[in-house]
Amino acid sequence: MSENMFLEKVVSEGISHLSYIIGHGGKAAVIDPRCDCRIYIDIAARNGAEITHILETHRNEDYVIGSKVLSELTGANIYHGKAFDFDYGTPVSEGNRFELGDLELSVIETPGHTLESISIAVRDKGFSNDPIGVFTGDALFIGNVGRTDFYPDRPEAMAGMLFDSIFGKLLPLGDHVLLFPAHGSGSICGSGMAAREFSTLGYERINNPVLQNKERQKFVDYKVAENHYLPPYFKQMEKLNKEGATPHFENLKSLKAYRADAFESASKEGMKVLDIRSPEALAGAFIEGSLAIPLNMVPAYAGWFLNYSRDIGIISENVGDAITASRYLFRLGYDCVKGYLVNGLTGWETSGRQYSRINAVHVKELVKRIQEKEAFTLLDVRTKEEVQRGRLPGTLHIYLGHLPNELEKISKDQPVTAFCGSGLRAIIAASILKQNGFKQVEVSLGSMEACAALGCPLEI
Amino acid sequence: MSENMFLEKVVSEGISHLSYIIGHGGKAAVIDPRCDCRIYIDIAARNGAEITHILETHRNEDYVIGSKVLSELTGANIYHGKAFDFDYGTPVSEGNRFELGDLELSVIETPGHTLESISIAVRDKGFSNDPIGVFTGDALFIGNVGRTDFYPDRPEAMAGMLFDSIFGKLLPLGDHVLLFPAHGSGSICGSGMAAREFSTLGYERINNPVLQNKERQKFVDYKVAENHYLPPYFKQMEKLNKEGATPHFENLKSLKAYRADAFESASKEGMKVLDIRSPEALAGAFIEGSLAIPLNMVPAYAGWFLNYSRDIGIISENVGDAITASRYLFRLGYDCVKGYLVNGLTGWETSGRQYSRINAVHVKELVKRIQEKEAFTLLDVRTKEEVQRGRLPGTLHIYLGHLPNELEKISKDQPVTAFCGSGLRAIIAASILKQNGFKQVEVSLGSMEACAALGCPLEI
Amino acid sequence: MSENMFLEKVVSEGISHLSYIIGHGGKAAVIDPRCDCRIYIDIAARNGAEITHILETHRNEDYVIGSKVLSELTGANIYHGKAFDFDYGTPVSEGNRFELGDLELSVIETPGHTLESISIAVRDKGFSNDPIGVFTGDALFIGNVGRTDFYPDRPEAMAGMLFDSIFGKLLPLGDHVLLFPAHGSGSICGSGMAAREFSTLGYERINNPVLQNKERQKFVDYKVAENHYLPPYFKQMEKLNKEGATPHFENLKSLKAYRADAFESASKEGMKVLDIRSPEALAGAFIEGSLAIPLNMVPAYAGWFLNYSRDIGIISENVGDAITASRYLFRLGYDCVKGYLVNGLTGWETSGRQYSRINAVHVKELVKRIQEKEAFTLLDVRTKEEVQRGRLPGTLHIYLGHLPNELEKISKDQPVTAFCGSGLRAIIAASILKQNGFKQVEVSLGSMEACAALGCPLEI
Amino acid sequence: MSENMFLEKVVSEGISHLSYIIGHGGKAAVIDPRCDCRIYIDIAARNGAEITHILETHRNEDYVIGSKVLSELTGANIYHGKAFDFDYGTPVSEGNRFELGDLELSVIETPGHTLESISIAVRDKGFSNDPIGVFTGDALFIGNVGRTDFYPDRPEAMAGMLFDSIFGKLLPLGDHVLLFPAHGSGSICGSGMAAREFSTLGYERINNPVLQNKERQKFVDYKVAENHYLPPYFKQMEKLNKEGATPHFENLKSLKAYRADAFESASKEGMKVLDIRSPEALAGAFIEGSLAIPLNMVPAYAGWFLNYSRDIGIISENVGDAITASRYLFRLGYDCVKGYLVNGLTGWETSGRQYSRINAVHVKELVKRIQEKEAFTLLDVRTKEEVQRGRLPGTLHIYLGHLPNELEKISKDQPVTAFCGSGLRAIIAASILKQNGFKQVEVSLGSMEACAALGCPLEI
Repeated sequence: MSENMFLEKVVSEGISHLSYIIGHGGKAAVIDPRCDCRIYIDIAARNGAEITHILETHRNEDYVIGSKVLSELTGANIYHGKAFDFDYGTPVSEGNRFELGDLELSVIETPGHTLESISIAVRDKGFSNDPIGVFTGDALFIGNVGRTDFYPDRPEAMAGMLFDSIFGKLLPLGDHVLLFPAHGSGSICGSGMAAREFSTLGYERINNPVLQNKERQKFVDYKVAENHYLPPYFKQMEKLNKEGATPHFENLKSLKAYRADAFESASKEGMKVLDIRSPEALAGAFIEGSLAIPLNMVPAYAGWFLNYSRDIGIISENVGDAITASRYLFRLGYDCVKGYLVNGLTGWETSGRQYSRINAVHVKELVKRIQEKEAFTLLDVRTKEEVQRGRLPGTLHIYLGHLPNELEKISKDQPVTAFCGSGLRAIIAASILKQNGFKQVEVSLGSMEACAALGCPLEI
Repeated sequence: MSENMFLEKVVSEGISHLSYIIGHGGKAAVIDPRCDCRIYIDIAARNGAEITHILETHRNEDYVIGSKVLSELTGANIYHGKAFDFDYGTPVSEGNRFELGDLELSVIETPGHTLESISIAVRDKGFSNDPIGVFTGDALFIGNVGRTDFYPDRPEAMAGMLFDSIFGKLLPLGDHVLLFPAHGSGSICGSGMAAREFSTLGYERINNPVLQNKERQKFVDYKVAENHYLPPYFKQMEKLNKEGATPHFENLKSLKAYRADAFESASKEGMKVLDIRSPEALAGAFIEGSLAIPLNMVPAYAGWFLNYSRDIGIISENVGDAITASRYLFRLGYDCVKGYLVNGLTGWETSGRQYSRINAVHVKELVKRIQEKEAFTLLDVRTKEEVQRGRLPGTLHIYLGHLPNELEKISKDQPVTAFCGSGLRAIIAASILKQNGFKQVEVSLGSMEACAALGCPLEI
Repeated sequence: MSENMFLEKVVSEGISHLSYIIGHGGKAAVIDPRCDCRIYIDIAARNGAEITHILETHRNEDYVIGSKVLSELTGANIYHGKAFDFDYGTPVSEGNRFELGDLELSVIETPGHTLESISIAVRDKGFSNDPIGVFTGDALFIGNVGRTDFYPDRPEAMAGMLFDSIFGKLLPLGDHVLLFPAHGSGSICGSGMAAREFSTLGYERINNPVLQNKERQKFVDYKVAENHYLPPYFKQMEKLNKEGATPHFENLKSLKAYRADAFESASKEGMKVLDIRSPEALAGAFIEGSLAIPLNMVPAYAGWFLNYSRDIGIISENVGDAITASRYLFRLGYDCVKGYLVNGLTGWETSGRQYSRINAVHVKELVKRIQEKEAFTLLDVRTKEEVQRGRLPGTLHIYLGHLPNELEKISKDQPVTAFCGSGLRAIIAASILKQNGFKQVEVSLGSMEACAALGCPLEI
Repeated sequence: MSENMFLEKVVSEGISHLSYIIGHGGKAAVIDPRCDCRIYIDIAARNGAEITHILETHRNEDYVIGSKVLSELTGANIYHGKAFDFDYGTPVSEGNRFELGDLELSVIETPGHTLESISIAVRDKGFSNDPIGVFTGDALFIGNVGRTDFYPDRPEAMAGMLFDSIFGKLLPLGDHVLLFPAHGSGSICGSGMAAREFSTLGYERINNPVLQNKERQKFVDYKVAENHYLPPYFKQMEKLNKEGATPHFENLKSLKAYRADAFESASKEGMKVLDIRSPEALAGAFIEGSLAIPLNMVPAYAGWFLNYSRDIGIISENVGDAITASRYLFRLGYDCVKGYLVNGLTGWETSGRQYSRINAVHVKELVKRIQEKEAFTLLDVRTKEEVQRGRLPGTLHIYLGHLPNELEKISKDQPVTAFCGSGLRAIIAASILKQNGFKQVEVSLGSMEACAALGCPLEI
């Protein structure tokens, strides 16, 4: 086996999902493939290998896994932890091994995030019997650990399991072991994850803040006290990922190119309008009734607001962005994107149709209004943790994902200014308010980051 | 409709099949799509258009048409001539019209190549009612016209129809009309087609040699006297193209990466070995029993020699070439390419397995042997027309496509030197001879082109 | 010479400049290369050819020609018309010929647009002595002809020359001849050019509106009556294209990634801020003092407003757009783009820095204001021809390019609403007004196209 | 600094040179850039960063470093170790630090491979003061360490320095530290390097075979006993890398497309013919006098045989390979590749020109000949180490690089069969023999790997 080993990371943007392909000797394994999976086949081919193994570290809840479609295209077997009753694939247990040339992958059961979670240790048998790396799924991240709140009836048990998995199984593999987790930095609103996508077990043992809770109970207490949000689409993902969906992106109908009139007609017949332009463009002009989610936020927030059974029509600056959005949505299980508005909003404007705007408000103006006790609602849609780290005085806090269900908390009689970390989530909130009959809606472009930069007085 | 019209030609290499996408006003039509058809969708999207119409100029016999798969992906309707009973799509008649923004496509029935052949005239209605271009399918090419031998019981009738179609319908559209045929230059062994892929009806009227037969009978006589070969795979194509195949290249299994031992095993279990390397590489070392077809010749010659129900394993210089070959074969309806030999022939050689060579013979040596009346067979596998234009003295002529069925004409008792135009077809022939027990096989690299360059004495 | 001829069109977006590469027999010629010219070398290589000839149809005034840099990279000779004293290259005369395999290019002197303008006829000598195509430079377009106003002291003489060139030399080549002009459709604000980029001399003879002026004097009168604008950067282009600039895009410094603070500092030290986002994004939030030119308008309008000796800093939605803009500017001779604002306007907003907005006004609101005689200025920045075809009542017309020099015509005491064809030029105008101290500035998104769609009452 | 850190490895194929770009906060550093360096600028732009620092771990001898051209394109400063008198850049010392957002790079002097060698430790200061990774240049590799034979007068001193650098400075950074060396696996004929490109200091400490020499003297003895070859081009590289070459790949003349006649003429006027096709293709047909180096071997072996002042003409299967070869050669400082033979060897053959072949010999035949004591020379061109691990009986060993100078050791009176590890180097040797008047030359395709697979009897 003289040729090179290869190991590549494939990122699903927005949710910062990390999958991996590793191979040697003409064989390759893919860990946690995304559903638009042609990329793995291309990498394998470039390395003169075929994909022979597909490994799932756990049943995912935040995206549709591509195992079955990749298996169809390659003939590879699918393996996952035995503690969950998947409708497809082969269950594996502690110590099961797979060989790829000189590489050996072996299964370590690491429950905690979910019951069936496994990690995969990697050895270069041509060199040594020591592990050289480990794929940890959602058990251990760089700078954080997996959430343990998915079994609401037994939070402590799950947190305890995670402790045992990390301290009893993963860290003992050795400080020198490379760490390959299933999520990485860049989740825009994530907390705690490092900005760095390279680390080792030793570096995490020493520096991962959560791992400084070295006593089991302290760790459990820490985890149980965490706050996590549970988007409604997780249920859909869990169902699909139990059954083993076979989503084939290449077989989807191509996007229709709607002129303004056709776009309006389709919309009147039920197509949901999703506007993925930047916050500034949305503020400048948008179509009443549309849902605004700037493109990069689509993976993280679409699942909160979009219905799986309703057609979707996209407004974007260009066709490429619309296709990217449809790919992001497809990864979340949405196969109902019908098309896009030709020439974007310019196509709409030049047709003579009506459009609105959402005025942007600078944080200095907000501070002034607060000081002058003007009558307006400052709606902060960040997470609980973010708000706890500092907020403008007098804000109403409703987490963005919960907004559609808590609109009655907001007065329609005075202006509402949507506020978040930077303005990106605020524009989503503003569009939801507009959809729901709020007339005086504004958006704070800059939001908390601008407050921090300017030293605005905050409450904690 | 202020935006640009677009018109792009998409070439299927090797068979030099030309398809087209044309559009305006957010709509596009594809003429004679190939089956790996994602490219049309991408072009349409880049132009802010959707594909709404698919037009087939005739039932094709030399490749699998992609109409149905493109229709599935886009929702576009399929149209073809009414004089054949297709199992799918909508029949159209003389004068039927389709609008794409300011563009108008209209049907002209132009039988001759086949009964149901149609041409499609293009008008820019925003500008004029004159036609600006015409898609002529296999009726009229640049420098040639379509073959009329597909109805063996009525060759004269078909040739006459073609005359009427060209002289009665196409040329009258006007000298100024752009010509967009379904085949172009580059068919390596084609005859008569220009090396140029741009022309007009006027240029052809004046300069196309076949069109200088301006009297109907003279034209008919000319066509009837032509010699054409009928590869066996045409039957398979005709069947698929009647039914409307839905080949989806993206859904094919990815290629397996065979090590030498696995490749040999699969071969022993029935997988046909197809070696697509260059004639020189094939001459230098090859595996006994394999079929040699240099990559660029695959589209034109694979259909003569490969069985549709047998697995295929590819030998190439690199993975990219193997994938290209599998795509070429797929366009001919072969979905049975299983994989490729890792590291190509080097992978085989270093495994210690046996290989052979085919000595290359320079034409000077051939001339010398002929003059000295050495005992050897000079096997010329070119077409009848090529041979009629000049041959080395004493050659045995068997057309390459007919070779497997005419092997008994060749003595096994003396050396056989395969000869063609350049050496590319000769190496195919040489590999067929080797497969069939000929021991003393050589290949003439350079072949007739070298003879011509050197002024070797030829017979006519 | 058995291999294929090739002919490809290379478009410079925005100015819709068309250049061509044509070749056969291992040789290729490029007609009117743009300065980012690696693309021609790649096309030639793909076709197994080297670039041996570079032909300029005339001294260009609207972009920097890439002849010298392409010549440096390929060793090809440069040829242009003899009636201008270029500092480089070789003058050619009527009838000079160049051979590329079977292709023959021959020079036709076609003055009118400029004195030294030439056209290049193409023949396929392997086929016929008839011309098959002609590169016409700025003499004859699809649906229009070249402007003849560049020699202000002799407008009639130039128009007459153009008549003679077209009617005396080009059209006589024959109806069947393919037409390859140096500009195509898509010039956003152009007038008269067809939306179609394929045509023939015959089609133009019959359908080109300007060519219906078949009497010389009528043609001259028509041309002399035309209105054309002369952007200031034409002078710079003419100078560079006389000398033969050697702009090498690959040698330019890469763009700096400015954080908000560094961007502001650089701006205070003299760097001009160019905001290339969409009109809606510019309306939603922009930095006071910046010049707004939406990306697709940069090639057509940057030359009116940007100084060649001042650094430029770009604001865009993403890095790719900034690089595209720097390429567009480079083609106009600007090599002074320093960098871009990291994270675009969000990077600015989250730094706490100030931003403004420009309210968008719907045309219905404009009509209402006009009817109700509200005090506001409706500033129409379209061309004279566009305005003559219809305008809203009471508008002030100043052509966009002239705006910086005619600001004194606009009252600062009442709101100004910028208006154009669609809103794209209006946002440029609005940004110029803001830069010059106008406080109450609005933009009409939709503008005249919306008026037309809605049937607003117009004056003619 | 909320955005992501990025770290990408850029490989120069063939010599398996590894360079890196790492960045955060809009800034990036490149470690040991190759000279075709546009790739770093593109990666930086994709990450919204600019390149601000260029670091050289040592003066390289096996390729031309791209520091100065990258510096010209970006404005970044260049830094290298102070123990060598570079003509450009800034010397740095132990402990010097550079900040890129939250990342800190710090200099560690690690002499041994060369005197001025430095390593660069990486810290994520937003997270911890512990190092997370280290760029080790040619001090420490994965599975091996750098060679220490470049100062022939003090081999022990250099080896001792390397011991001190590794054991005294690098390993103490901690087992958990990621290792980023300057060379990786895939050097076809390298020895000892792992097939894996990911490792940590801890994994190497435990498993790197050379590091098991934990006593200084034992380590020094081990290193001094090693055999290394010194290709002549290293001198040229050292000179260029002292001066700071500014090679700009994009400014090179594009390749000429030679027809057979022009290729032959240029060759007769002094152009060296370099044939980069596969060993099988070279065996099948080649041009007498040409130097054969299969494409993937060009980076490793061209520098032994090609003169810097002589033009080079390439023979390849396609244009893409010729361009790749010219890039490989450029990285070695050759800017004299003039062009390629159009249509490769087929173009030559069809011109009627002469060609030769080199018969391939299977190892079974070699064994038989040896056993039967046939008169022939079996020329083994592998390295001394390879030969020491096993050889066929009676072989003549001359290292490939030394072959041109040791030809007198080989008898011209009997057949010579070139032999190596797989056949790739053997074909190079065979072509050198042919160039030098050896008439009976063969090549062993399969060579030692085939012997090993078949269990041929070997001498040790």
